Amino acid sequence: MAEETLDVQEAFAGSGLAHERVEAILEAVETGDQERLVGLLEPLHEADIADLLEQVSRADRRALILLWGVDLDGSVLTELEEGVRDEVLEELPDEVLAAAVQDLESDDVVYLAEDLDEPQQERLLDSLEDADRIAVERSLNFGEYSAGRMMQREAVMAPEHWTVGDAIDFMRAAEDLPESFYDLNIVDAQMHPIGIVSLGRLMASARTIELRNIMSEDFRTFDVATSQEDVANAFNKYHLISAPVIDEDGRLAGVITIDDAMDVLEDEAEEDMRLLAGVGDEELSDGVAEIAKGRFIWLTVNLATAILASAVIAMFTGTIEAIVALAVLMPIVASMGGNAGTQTLTVTVRALATDNLTAANMGRIVWREGLVGGLNGIGFALLIGALTGLFYQDATLGIVIGIAMVGNMIVAALAGVLIPIALEKIGADPALASGTFVTTITDVFGFFAFLGLAGIMLL
Amino acid sequence: MAEETLDVQEAFAGSGLAHERVEAILEAVETGDQERLVGLLEPLHEADIADLLEQVSRADRRALILLWGVDLDGSVLTELEEGVRDEVLEELPDEVLAAAVQDLESDDVVYLAEDLDEPQQERLLDSLEDADRIAVERSLNFGEYSAGRMMQREAVMAPEHWTVGDAIDFMRAAEDLPESFYDLNIVDAQMHPIGIVSLGRLMASARTIELRNIMSEDFRTFDVATSQEDVANAFNKYHLISAPVIDEDGRLAGVITIDDAMDVLEDEAEEDMRLLAGVGDEELSDGVAEIAKGRFIWLTVNLATAILASAVIAMFTGTIEAIVALAVLMPIVASMGGNAGTQTLTVTVRALATDNLTAANMGRIVWREGLVGGLNGIGFALLIGALTGLFYQDATLGIVIGIAMVGNMIVAALAGVLIPIALEKIGADPALASGTFVTTITDVFGFFAFLGLAGIMLL
Repeated sequence: MAEETLDVQEAFAGSGLAHERVEAILEAVETGDQERLVGLLEPLHEADIADLLEQVSRADRRALILLWGVDLDGSVLTELEEGVRDEVLEELPDEVLAAAVQDLESDDVVYLAEDLDEPQQERLLDSLEDADRIAVERSLNFGEYSAGRMMQREAVMAPEHWTVGDAIDFMRAAEDLPESFYDLNIVDAQMHPIGIVSLGRLMASARTIELRNIMSEDFRTFDVATSQEDVANAFNKYHLISAPVIDEDGRLAGVITIDDAMDVLEDEAEEDMRLLAGVGDEELSDGVAEIAKGRFIWLTVNLATAILASAVIAMFTGTIEAIVALAVLMPIVASMGGNAGTQTLTVTVRALATDNLTAANMGRIVWREGLVGGLNGIGFALLIGALTGLFYQDATLGIVIGIAMVGNMIVAALAGVLIPIALEKIGADPALASGTFVTTITDVFGFFAFLGLAGIMLL
Repeated sequence: MAEETLDVQEAFAGSGLAHERVEAILEAVETGDQERLVGLLEPLHEADIADLLEQVSRADRRALILLWGVDLDGSVLTELEEGVRDEVLEELPDEVLAAAVQDLESDDVVYLAEDLDEPQQERLLDSLEDADRIAVERSLNFGEYSAGRMMQREAVMAPEHWTVGDAIDFMRAAEDLPESFYDLNIVDAQMHPIGIVSLGRLMASARTIELRNIMSEDFRTFDVATSQEDVANAFNKYHLISAPVIDEDGRLAGVITIDDAMDVLEDEAEEDMRLLAGVGDEELSDGVAEIAKGRFIWLTVNLATAILASAVIAMFTGTIEAIVALAVLMPIVASMGGNAGTQTLTVTVRALATDNLTAANMGRIVWREGLVGGLNGIGFALLIGALTGLFYQDATLGIVIGIAMVGNMIVAALAGVLIPIALEKIGADPALASGTFVTTITDVFGFFAFLGLAGIMLL
């Protein structure tokens, strides 16, 4: 009980782990005190143990895992970041991994198994009981980001002619109920889902009532082939807690619960952010070399586009030689375009990701973004035009930068909204490299319009 | 049943709404056919009706709401985007609003009431039954982004000495059970929560067992003052479905469920993205003027920083006049720094938001980012230095751009990781304007280092 209180307090501290406990755990690892280690880890939530493993050094992590041995809690593995998980799974002796996965739900075993190399996956599957192994193997046959992979095969079901009492008695007698479940799935003789009874509803109904009289027929099912992103968006939109998954024949194949949907939803939002910023799928626990390598690729793309932009400037070397003020002013036009484009882009990518930008409002949104770009362009054209004209005592120079600014802001707005829409249309991720595309366009157009106009109007 | 099948199919189409149904609804609105409208809306999920309202024009929205009248489903209001919701609430006759909120949970009423202006809020509160009004008023007294605002006050509770049978009988007899609930809260005589029994657990236990024997004492509670972001992160991390909220005296004050946590989590991720891109809290349904205004403010900040950067360039007018190639090359140094800084920034902001960047690993992460910046800086310095030296047949110019590149990449990395950490330390949002700060620093440093070095080494 003292331990539990500590745990709750630690959770409130934000990180979920008190500094003293981390110290004590590392000390136990160093002295090889297995009993003390198990005692210190026991009251912690698996997510906190995963955090601990991610935040210590690789050597400490390895020593901890080996000392923990067969007492290792399999659910910790599912909570680890991908990079650390791969590393731990590689180092884990087969018998420890086999013991660790015995108590996991099938979706968690699938989640771990899909990352293993062929021989290790084979050994893991062999260690499972027959029924579990078949379930996991069938899930692994579904596509990697499909509802079939995401679901757990353990589903609690009942026929519609059962009474509330029958259902409760059945559940009381059942030995292998899922760790957490929220609905009773009502199926017909062919195993097709025909209704849902939430546990709350079941609880509130008299024992003699038949399930068919309290089941809700207005429920959502997902096909095994549905993408995980679509599943997650539907959970979010319709406030689902769990939903049945059906196979090609419309039979109940498994259940997806909200915790899995929440993971996918967060991964998707994070992926969009990373793609927009040109960061790959790096993890916070990755090493310097991995991270530098991942980012190098994106920076190389950026270098190529920067060189393209500077090639545009190079076309106007003579103009800049004549009026050096152009070199001072040109980054302003490019920078404003880049920023306005990124704003539009971010809004568009999120709207597409959350299914809020559809055929019904696409024309209106594109038109509106163009208008916003034009309006703000006129505002900033007047501002920067006046400032430039006054500072350099040259009205024409002010007019040149003003016209270039309006043009670039409209181009920025249209690029920001049309590029992600086009990427989505061809089946690519709308966030993928969009940022680089958009800023390339605004840099190139900005430099070209400003320096080109200057050449015509000022020389 | 035909209608329901249609509904399910529509949901799979992604947008949740078939084009034909939208047409039929708008036709019913135009002909003022209230009965047909209600019939068409009835099978739709409230979230889909909200989508419909968001995607039609303002005039159609107004006409639909007025024709729908007192049959309006209050839960549609809670699903609307903020901009549309404010507009609809303003136009809604008091008696329609009063009827609409009667069946909502207290947290949803609070969510609507907090957006109303004083007199309308007063009238809404007056329309509620006494007990409901007091509950809503108490919630409104908690801070705007607190767990107290987020929770619903309806909690299902029982004393520990009750048996499973007592609890089930109590729930069967209760008339005002929440629409969805997942746990039974076990409280002592002073209403302090002392345990949790999930409905699944309750269901699987014999009627004669006392609740104290099956309750879990290892559960998480939140204080009414806890921030909604902390609550949402804890739900995500620990896979919570519902959690009790306690007041200052440790008494059970309400319950937070996962659907609310999911909303907050998505809002936070979206807010980070928007802040990084300099987009305020605009909604997809906002008008041109609102959106242009919101973005204008951020673009003005960007303009100021762009002028600052060009002031740095202006310091070196003489140098550029002597070697015009510098004007061609300088955007490359600035652009690479800006990109590298944005990468680091994005990773840091997400790590802070998800509590993965803590005192335990902060030093290591900052050091690592500096190293990554240095490594990639050296790589790109060699690349661009060689390209420049060859293209301009000028080794010194290559060396100048190389040195400026390494320096700017290291500055970018450190700015990207330290600025959000510093903002978090002073209590500001780490994403707030971070992007502008970072690119300002990389622009200013990049231009200064490159042009300054060129002045020293080439003239």
